[in-house]
Amino acid sequence: MTSTPKGRAGGRATDELRAVTIRPDFNKHAEGSVLIEMGDTRVICTASIEDKVPPFLMRSGKGWVTAEYGMLPRATNERNAREAAKGKQGGRTLEIQRLIGRALRGTIDQEALGERTVIIDCDVIQADGGTRCASITGGYVALVLALGKIYLGKKMVNWPVRSQVAAVSVGIRHGMPHLDLDYSEDSTAEVDMNIVATDAMQFIELQGTAEKGSFSEDEMTSMIALARGGIEQLVAKQREILSPLLAQVDDVARERLKSKFKK
Amino acid sequence: MTSTPKGRAGGRATDELRAVTIRPDFNKHAEGSVLIEMGDTRVICTASIEDKVPPFLMRSGKGWVTAEYGMLPRATNERNAREAAKGKQGGRTLEIQRLIGRALRGTIDQEALGERTVIIDCDVIQADGGTRCASITGGYVALVLALGKIYLGKKMVNWPVRSQVAAVSVGIRHGMPHLDLDYSEDSTAEVDMNIVATDAMQFIELQGTAEKGSFSEDEMTSMIALARGGIEQLVAKQREILSPLLAQVDDVARERLKSKFKK
Amino acid sequence: MTSTPKGRAGGRATDELRAVTIRPDFNKHAEGSVLIEMGDTRVICTASIEDKVPPFLMRSGKGWVTAEYGMLPRATNERNAREAAKGKQGGRTLEIQRLIGRALRGTIDQEALGERTVIIDCDVIQADGGTRCASITGGYVALVLALGKIYLGKKMVNWPVRSQVAAVSVGIRHGMPHLDLDYSEDSTAEVDMNIVATDAMQFIELQGTAEKGSFSEDEMTSMIALARGGIEQLVAKQREILSPLLAQVDDVARERLKSKFKK
Amino acid sequence: MTSTPKGRAGGRATDELRAVTIRPDFNKHAEGSVLIEMGDTRVICTASIEDKVPPFLMRSGKGWVTAEYGMLPRATNERNAREAAKGKQGGRTLEIQRLIGRALRGTIDQEALGERTVIIDCDVIQADGGTRCASITGGYVALVLALGKIYLGKKMVNWPVRSQVAAVSVGIRHGMPHLDLDYSEDSTAEVDMNIVATDAMQFIELQGTAEKGSFSEDEMTSMIALARGGIEQLVAKQREILSPLLAQVDDVARERLKSKFKK
Amino acid sequence: MTSTPKGRAGGRATDELRAVTIRPDFNKHAEGSVLIEMGDTRVICTASIEDKVPPFLMRSGKGWVTAEYGMLPRATNERNAREAAKGKQGGRTLEIQRLIGRALRGTIDQEALGERTVIIDCDVIQADGGTRCASITGGYVALVLALGKIYLGKKMVNWPVRSQVAAVSVGIRHGMPHLDLDYSEDSTAEVDMNIVATDAMQFIELQGTAEKGSFSEDEMTSMIALARGGIEQLVAKQREILSPLLAQVDDVARERLKSKFKK
Amino acid sequence: MTSTPKGRAGGRATDELRAVTIRPDFNKHAEGSVLIEMGDTRVICTASIEDKVPPFLMRSGKGWVTAEYGMLPRATNERNAREAAKGKQGGRTLEIQRLIGRALRGTIDQEALGERTVIIDCDVIQADGGTRCASITGGYVALVLALGKIYLGKKMVNWPVRSQVAAVSVGIRHGMPHLDLDYSEDSTAEVDMNIVATDAMQFIELQGTAEKGSFSEDEMTSMIALARGGIEQLVAKQREILSPLLAQVDDVARERLKSKFKK
Repeated sequence: MTSTPKGRAGGRATDELRAVTIRPDFNKHAEGSVLIEMGDTRVICTASIEDKVPPFLMRSGKGWVTAEYGMLPRATNERNAREAAKGKQGGRTLEIQRLIGRALRGTIDQEALGERTVIIDCDVIQADGGTRCASITGGYVALVLALGKIYLGKKMVNWPVRSQVAAVSVGIRHGMPHLDLDYSEDSTAEVDMNIVATDAMQFIELQGTAEKGSFSEDEMTSMIALARGGIEQLVAKQREILSPLLAQVDDVARERLKSKFKK
Repeated sequence: MTSTPKGRAGGRATDELRAVTIRPDFNKHAEGSVLIEMGDTRVICTASIEDKVPPFLMRSGKGWVTAEYGMLPRATNERNAREAAKGKQGGRTLEIQRLIGRALRGTIDQEALGERTVIIDCDVIQADGGTRCASITGGYVALVLALGKIYLGKKMVNWPVRSQVAAVSVGIRHGMPHLDLDYSEDSTAEVDMNIVATDAMQFIELQGTAEKGSFSEDEMTSMIALARGGIEQLVAKQREILSPLLAQVDDVARERLKSKFKK
Repeated sequence: MTSTPKGRAGGRATDELRAVTIRPDFNKHAEGSVLIEMGDTRVICTASIEDKVPPFLMRSGKGWVTAEYGMLPRATNERNAREAAKGKQGGRTLEIQRLIGRALRGTIDQEALGERTVIIDCDVIQADGGTRCASITGGYVALVLALGKIYLGKKMVNWPVRSQVAAVSVGIRHGMPHLDLDYSEDSTAEVDMNIVATDAMQFIELQGTAEKGSFSEDEMTSMIALARGGIEQLVAKQREILSPLLAQVDDVARERLKSKFKK
Repeated sequence: MTSTPKGRAGGRATDELRAVTIRPDFNKHAEGSVLIEMGDTRVICTASIEDKVPPFLMRSGKGWVTAEYGMLPRATNERNAREAAKGKQGGRTLEIQRLIGRALRGTIDQEALGERTVIIDCDVIQADGGTRCASITGGYVALVLALGKIYLGKKMVNWPVRSQVAAVSVGIRHGMPHLDLDYSEDSTAEVDMNIVATDAMQFIELQGTAEKGSFSEDEMTSMIALARGGIEQLVAKQREILSPLLAQVDDVARERLKSKFKK
Repeated sequence: MTSTPKGRAGGRATDELRAVTIRPDFNKHAEGSVLIEMGDTRVICTASIEDKVPPFLMRSGKGWVTAEYGMLPRATNERNAREAAKGKQGGRTLEIQRLIGRALRGTIDQEALGERTVIIDCDVIQADGGTRCASITGGYVALVLALGKIYLGKKMVNWPVRSQVAAVSVGIRHGMPHLDLDYSEDSTAEVDMNIVATDAMQFIELQGTAEKGSFSEDEMTSMIALARGGIEQLVAKQREILSPLLAQVDDVARERLKSKFKK
Repeated sequence: MTSTPKGRAGGRATDELRAVTIRPDFNKHAEGSVLIEMGDTRVICTASIEDKVPPFLMRSGKGWVTAEYGMLPRATNERNAREAAKGKQGGRTLEIQRLIGRALRGTIDQEALGERTVIIDCDVIQADGGTRCASITGGYVALVLALGKIYLGKKMVNWPVRSQVAAVSVGIRHGMPHLDLDYSEDSTAEVDMNIVATDAMQFIELQGTAEKGSFSEDEMTSMIALARGGIEQLVAKQREILSPLLAQVDDVARERLKSKFKK
């Protein structure tokens, strides 16, 4: 455990994640759903499956994965005006939901998915920094739960999940890299970086921003090292929750293979 | 306990409420907040206090209470398009939030509130019928919790809450009145009525709609009788949660009165 | 005739409607139309028939009845901003047009209507209270006039009108129930109730709101009694205007029946 | 009277206006109002006066005149979607209301008006061609009626009306100029021209459009000659309705002048 | 050359156009495009061809020509808010693009065009008066260039261009007619007129507006005379740029005719 | 010069920028402006200075820099619907303009700027990949030109520019890093990265996205190396254009310093 001069809330080390919990099947209606908590950040992620695709994929045999992101007005310390009442989604919202969509879409084999759309809704019910990362990490679990239901229900021939994906933020505060910033840390950090990576530690997306000044390649390298540690723990957490489902998926896949050979 | 020919989910009697739980302080940011559950219906209610009023109340010395209502896209069995993405709130949403606003505003003394606005956000995270009633019942608790914080923090001279308010639905199914309809009951009911009432069983708002055909004055009378029973239990539930706060409010009020007489 | 302590405009009794006139065929283009006046409230109601239905009714053999409501900017004492210029219909507008739609839809046999949509446009050209009730009472006449034209034109096999419907407001002012409130009465009433009922005095919709304080079941009963008297006069007025058409409809229905038996 | 080979509805001559009626004080709320009818075209024009001006005129001592135009959905033969429901005013609407505003603004002395805005609402309740011209001709009367009320009420020092303005359409059909086209004529005309002119036959605005092909300078000259005749009749009609008011205005102006000299 | 008392920028005569340049093929993507400059006014006009038509022309065998107009925010002296950010196109924009569309549509034989839509985008990158006229004059060239590409590419049987069209503004300043007003002239002119005419000096559209006061028929006649001179130069300029293409079109037309006769 | 197996348009090496030209003072109205071309990508950047700041900076003594981004409809190979006509800016547009704003804001000392807002409008008139990077590189020059005008005009005490900033894209195609992707390269790249850096090669923003699959830390390092080379050439290009202005700024700064010491 690394110490930090100014200290973090709860005595957290600079390379330590906040407490993470992922509660599956949080919503009784959705094909897949979780409540993910990273410290005081809480996001409901649901995966809804619809038997249609956007126009550009019609009759292609391929499916689509997309995401929408929202925040309850009082998820934040100061109340934010409701986007539905303002009549449009803000730039931040659109940017985040495009990121979540790209991150999750990258893990899926569109042909194995077939002509279906999976919509991942990520709704922040309490925000304390890192909501986009929590949305990706939790949204992945909701997505796999939904696909598992379809696959086990025999409505899908091949298992479409190719890899695991999770996301974490890192930043530089007081000149030192910190993992998984909470809101108060994030708003005073010099650099803020969001890293989306697979379980094989390959990057899907990487976005670093100097909030004040600029940052060097060395600083980036040290942030990435810290992020790796966080991603490893997050994918382990996801695996833990998904393992019963994935075991069933494996069984079914094996049986389907056998019955195929018998014929 | 009254029996019902066709039966209700969980063997519920026609005059029986679903399990109700109200979890206070659900949100760490809001001045007042609850998670209310009525069966599988779950609504997050937050009360936010802002030190400004709408233009028509400026320099009047009076405050305002208003409400906003929303539903997560997958709160429902079929996913509903996100209103923020559609670019406007639908008629149903506007109608419900106007109702919640009127119901809660009626319980507050606007002059004692002073030039402040309380915004009650009611966000349905899972829907199974009765969301507008749950929003009123839960929103009232959030409102009082927020006002308590202000009053005890000595930012308010007089306690502005004049009465208690709760709401419940009743309907006629198979020709027989039923209390607190869940979604599957509501969607097949002949008549649907929402009743908003005070702890003294006076009506604040009453809305009855014949979904099929029409209804008689006698049927209305029998629905109202059923609703009374439900309202009584709901106001008791609210009182239970609010009693520690109200005891503190009473103490402070008494002290303030004393110190006033001493001078 | 009942007297009232403070008096009403024109010496009207508390149980007396304002002067009502319904002028049929006010618009040369619409399939059905009226200008309805209740005192100084004037609403143009037109019924337009289109040979298509909303998506959820396609290929169901059933038709749809819907309503839209609007107000000219200077229908009111103070000019109201034009909704088309503001870029959206307000909550009050949406609430009212949903009410009108439900009320009128309830009188029609959707299967006899066939795959058609009837749009009832209710446009208030001068407002003095009770515009939503006048819209329902007048809209019903426009609807029947339009259906008559279709039926007599032999484009419809069975007459689709099942019942008559009218609406009236009642309220409590100075503690006493009053029928058919004008704007100045409405804006000072303690309770305001809109009642939509059939010619058999069955309720279609009933909405009561305590504008100040609350109201008891007894008060509600006395308001309903007053409303009954108003509804009776309004349905009589409607019948008077529609009787020539309805006589023709009866003749045609009888002939069609005869020719059916002959075959 | 000129004859026309193909004939016009009602045997109208090519240089003949449709029946024109202007009914003043049609609306009880507005400062000035008329119902203008030109044949089957009917427009309600109201003038509303507000004691504020747009930002660019603040503290300039000058007033503003502006117009808004709308059409009830079933003013036309086929129902038009309601602009408030579509969420925006169409290009045709904006173009027409800008024209009306310019035409009426040109007749007013902005300094004599003082820091006030007059909004002229022109709402077409039945359309049969020439709605923008009827709006200008009727809107002028509503405007003067409203200004008269202010002037006589002693809230305005100098009478701000500088000239009279009216508008009429002319067009070429079957190669021959026609005055005041109705809808069926307009939709088959080769050229369509709207002329806005003062009582001194000076042009305020002139808009000619070749709907098919093009038109020569000679054709334009002959259309203008026809329009002159129409404008003369329309300004006479306006004068007839406004003369009692203008007589009063004259009296007051004379008295004010006298009392000024006495001092 | 006529002299002017107050002088024009660059010593321009009252009957003199500003320097006009039309640079074809300005954009590498569009089927047809130009950059037109009239003095300091610069407009990019592109013509895009799509193989579909608006609903009202489907299966009619006819094509459509439409236009859109925009201005970069800093095309003007003071920055104008971006219409995309405001969420709607203003009335002026809609009015201008409707005018451009009518003007260009009038030159095309819709049947020869076939079921295609040509969209002319006119984007003002620097404004100094006369942008709508420059858009028409330049848009015509872009349109013909695009149609030439289609025709020569053998995707169109008959050449659809029936006439040439150009536009110019004239105005009255200090009581004297002036051709082709720049922004500073336009904003101080008493009368402003836009004239759209064919190469045969027939009018397509003519819009005159008295910005202050009014104007007489004589003044109009003198403005039209001045406009004729401007139009003549503009159509000559267009012809110069289009002549190589038109020569090719003629050759192909002749060959097609020949090969038709041979069969 | 490095060779590439599949070749790039124009025989460009993988570490070679496209031809870059920056034409200053492209627009006569804006305080600062350029036309930047990177190959066939052309962007007009204007800097507009307004003497006001957003609400959150009022009375702070600090200024603001913000950006807006747009594309002409036919900037692209297929015509894109005009955002002003669609009624909203898309997610991609908002994301890009937020990025440009952050990048340019980071180079400015907000206190030296004083209570002013600089709006950088970046309008793509022809797109061929790299439009956001060209906007940043060109927008920086427009910004400095505008600030120079203010500073030399003695309306600003201290020169507010702290560093230079430019942006370039890099990507991985066929497994090999490429600098400055054009559209056809970008749409087939496996990884796409945009790098915003200062003249001291410090990062302001870094966004890498795996369009297909994922990427390793080594791949990222090699892309960054390539980007450095591009940034160096771009900042040199900027310096070349700005050097006459910066020399003047230096002279004035020296004189101001002298006159300060004399006092």
